[in-house]
Amino acid sequence: MRPTITSFSNDTVKRLRSLHDRKGRRAEGLFLVEGLRLVTEAVDAGRAPKVLLVSEEAAAHPLSVAAAAATRDAGGEVLIATREILAKVTGKDNPGAVAAAFAVWPTPLAAIDRTTAAMWVVCEGLKDPGNLGTILRTCDATGAGGVILLDHSCDPFGVEAVRASMGALFTRRVAQADGAEFFAWLRAGPGMLAGAVLGPDTVDYRAVRWAVPTFLFMGNEQSGLPADYAAACDVRVGIPMLGKADSLNVAVAAAVLLYEVLGQGRGGDPVI
Amino acid sequence: MRPTITSFSNDTVKRLRSLHDRKGRRAEGLFLVEGLRLVTEAVDAGRAPKVLLVSEEAAAHPLSVAAAAATRDAGGEVLIATREILAKVTGKDNPGAVAAAFAVWPTPLAAIDRTTAAMWVVCEGLKDPGNLGTILRTCDATGAGGVILLDHSCDPFGVEAVRASMGALFTRRVAQADGAEFFAWLRAGPGMLAGAVLGPDTVDYRAVRWAVPTFLFMGNEQSGLPADYAAACDVRVGIPMLGKADSLNVAVAAAVLLYEVLGQGRGGDPVI
Repeated sequence: MRPTITSFSNDTVKRLRSLHDRKGRRAEGLFLVEGLRLVTEAVDAGRAPKVLLVSEEAAAHPLSVAAAAATRDAGGEVLIATREILAKVTGKDNPGAVAAAFAVWPTPLAAIDRTTAAMWVVCEGLKDPGNLGTILRTCDATGAGGVILLDHSCDPFGVEAVRASMGALFTRRVAQADGAEFFAWLRAGPGMLAGAVLGPDTVDYRAVRWAVPTFLFMGNEQSGLPADYAAACDVRVGIPMLGKADSLNVAVAAAVLLYEVLGQGRGGDPVI
Repeated sequence: MRPTITSFSNDTVKRLRSLHDRKGRRAEGLFLVEGLRLVTEAVDAGRAPKVLLVSEEAAAHPLSVAAAAATRDAGGEVLIATREILAKVTGKDNPGAVAAAFAVWPTPLAAIDRTTAAMWVVCEGLKDPGNLGTILRTCDATGAGGVILLDHSCDPFGVEAVRASMGALFTRRVAQADGAEFFAWLRAGPGMLAGAVLGPDTVDYRAVRWAVPTFLFMGNEQSGLPADYAAACDVRVGIPMLGKADSLNVAVAAAVLLYEVLGQGRGGDPVI
């Protein structure tokens, strides 16, 4: 198939390229998804690309054809591009065969129906989009409902977050709020807020009797949970730290807690 | 204090800069550590920089002074640099106050004394240095001895691996080997090889009776453990995957397993 875009100065190329920055995503209301697998996950989850860019070589691939059909059915645009154009759009020397722009969706707390899952993750000031994506991926694996992002956390629609989520962005819920909004919402319904806290005066994570739903509250990568947020938790949970370092990677800590809650719920009593 | 290096063309600047690439690290026998905190962790663990680069502003900081003393005592070189030089060396717009080159150390299997820890992680074809650093960090937190890297895994002395390890590179053991070497070494001593495997025919990770030492065998990020490696394990361990995605991030999976082994060892019976 002959390319429909060959020029770096093409307007669509420029628009897609701008989606690497939060500013560009805000201006366009779009975000970028790279790779046939991730685009397919999005389509399977009921999202259709606004713009689908397919390399010449991949245009006949059954998954590309399916993604193109979904795009056109929803009124989006399908473009065939050279590898050079895909490299330009994705910023990679060795780009995938497909890139697509999807419409961002609203992420108010109202998007969260807490009764649909036994576990949720709440992140305060999360900075690293790779961590966010990894947490979403672990939410998918454990059946957790999704992530509530507080107080200037990173953008769930950033390229790194989408990539690290391995498609979980499309199957989990994401909300963004400030702390005051979150606490008002939290206390208007059922659920236990369990803060992941370093230091003494915590309950060992294997001894906690988790409620349904449990909200696991994770702090910022550098500074952990602020003292007032930790104080507002129903339980402050500790994970043993036997070594020299004083903390775990936040996505690792979230996973250890999610699997502990899940494991207790799968039958058997807590260890203690 | 006046800078001793102000020129980008300085030979030391070029050498340090080359350490971002594996080729440069091999040629120099050195690796790069960025930031006063990490350099201090290395010094505390008994490693002295061969070259210590300190910004003018940070030269009087007590930790800088201590790192400089350790460097000079071991015959290394201490240089005061401008922020621009530090930005050049680290490749960051907003560099830390310190960067240092340390000698790489040998990483044969003989560096591992399996009797010194109850848990070890073995990684096959691990590609992402951030994952490696995160696994080392979790090894530190759980008291695991360290990581054995098989078959073209990433370089433990890469900048991203060192950074993500948060200093654990300096307190944990690291070995590099090919599969045949590893299996010969493994079977010449005690220990259970527990492979993290996707799919059916696995034992649930909460039902395994872990031996001492346990070697947790993690596969490559894309393809998991090769079938022949999985077949050579004493137990194939499964972690529940309830969602749409078919795997966890490898550093997350390693952490869930490390904390499960640790938790069972801390008293209390396994849940099943």
